[in-house]
Amino acid sequence: MLTVYGDIRSGNCYKIRLLLDLLGREYAWRHVDVLAGGARTAEFLALNPNGKVPLLQLEDGATLAESNAILYLLAQGSRFWPQDALLQARVLQWQFFEQYSHEPYIAVARFINLYLGLPAERRADYEAKQGPGHQALAVMETQLRQTPYLCGADYSIADISLYAYTHVAHEGGFDLSGYPALQAWLLRIAQQPGHKTIAAYLTEQTA
Amino acid sequence: MLTVYGDIRSGNCYKIRLLLDLLGREYAWRHVDVLAGGARTAEFLALNPNGKVPLLQLEDGATLAESNAILYLLAQGSRFWPQDALLQARVLQWQFFEQYSHEPYIAVARFINLYLGLPAERRADYEAKQGPGHQALAVMETQLRQTPYLCGADYSIADISLYAYTHVAHEGGFDLSGYPALQAWLLRIAQQPGHKTIAAYLTEQTA
Repeated sequence: MLTVYGDIRSGNCYKIRLLLDLLGREYAWRHVDVLAGGARTAEFLALNPNGKVPLLQLEDGATLAESNAILYLLAQGSRFWPQDALLQARVLQWQFFEQYSHEPYIAVARFINLYLGLPAERRADYEAKQGPGHQALAVMETQLRQTPYLCGADYSIADISLYAYTHVAHEGGFDLSGYPALQAWLLRIAQQPGHKTIAAYLTEQTA
Repeated sequence: MLTVYGDIRSGNCYKIRLLLDLLGREYAWRHVDVLAGGARTAEFLALNPNGKVPLLQLEDGATLAESNAILYLLAQGSRFWPQDALLQARVLQWQFFEQYSHEPYIAVARFINLYLGLPAERRADYEAKQGPGHQALAVMETQLRQTPYLCGADYSIADISLYAYTHVAHEGGFDLSGYPALQAWLLRIAQQPGHKTIAAYLTEQTA
């Protein structure tokens, strides 16, 4: 069985769990408490020298890091990965956009606010994330005015990647009311059969 | 013919040119001066709403952004993209690592030093990039002690992605003398038939 090392509060970890559930795959979820330094122990660094979750471990023990690379592997042969090479590259384009232009602002602002409690010494950093975060949301809005999903007519792992931190962007101080096409896209994804939000997974975990 | 919009001083743009030359593909190179705001003009934003180079334009006018997504598309069917799905995911793992854990430190430190001339108001930012940049180099060193290339025995687009800013890391103040396996890897790549460095392209351009 597949094993996923992750912390469901992290959008990067949530991506993997959402795809696995949508695919109906079985997996073992190993909770790693990143706030308590769980990804920086000697034991975990032996699995991932970069000290980050999520980490996928295959049946034979092989490991794979980086959330979007894990999504790529898991989505092969499914409806979440397109057949056409240009569309495949466009899925990756959005995933690289997510990691470079979206996550460092929206996820990090959320982290500072929600997990660190917006301490005074991080406020300037938090404020500095708002402008670039809104730029990323505006780039998504431009695309989503043209197509129902980021890569066209079909839901793909590009949408899963961007949904992860966008559906909790308000926790980083981002008001989404100026992005109607993006809001419609969030709703379209939430209505997929079997969909769960981060909040739903957290409720299950503590139930 | 393929058209690439780019600035060869940028490692992200250089990646595309290096792969195209190694593949022996013909292409038109359209210089975009990023320092002069060339990626932020209305004309360019119509091609890439995210306002970044490189940008690939196909024969039919379709565009693709994000350097590593462009490498993916161009490498399909070549020796630079492996056949096995897990190896493919590992190539992507290194490319996502590059964009999240390497480029924001090593490329940005180089930018502040080389292009901005290390102004006093950016020195703290420049210094803050050194630690995480060395962490990224150490992660590469750990892998390259085990395999000649990042994904095993074969040169892939993962190597091209990481080589781009690593071979000019000294321009960002990074001393590579503590990374012998990484230095051997840089040399291994430089010895590939048809290889060119950023400096070689710049010399050609001004010749």
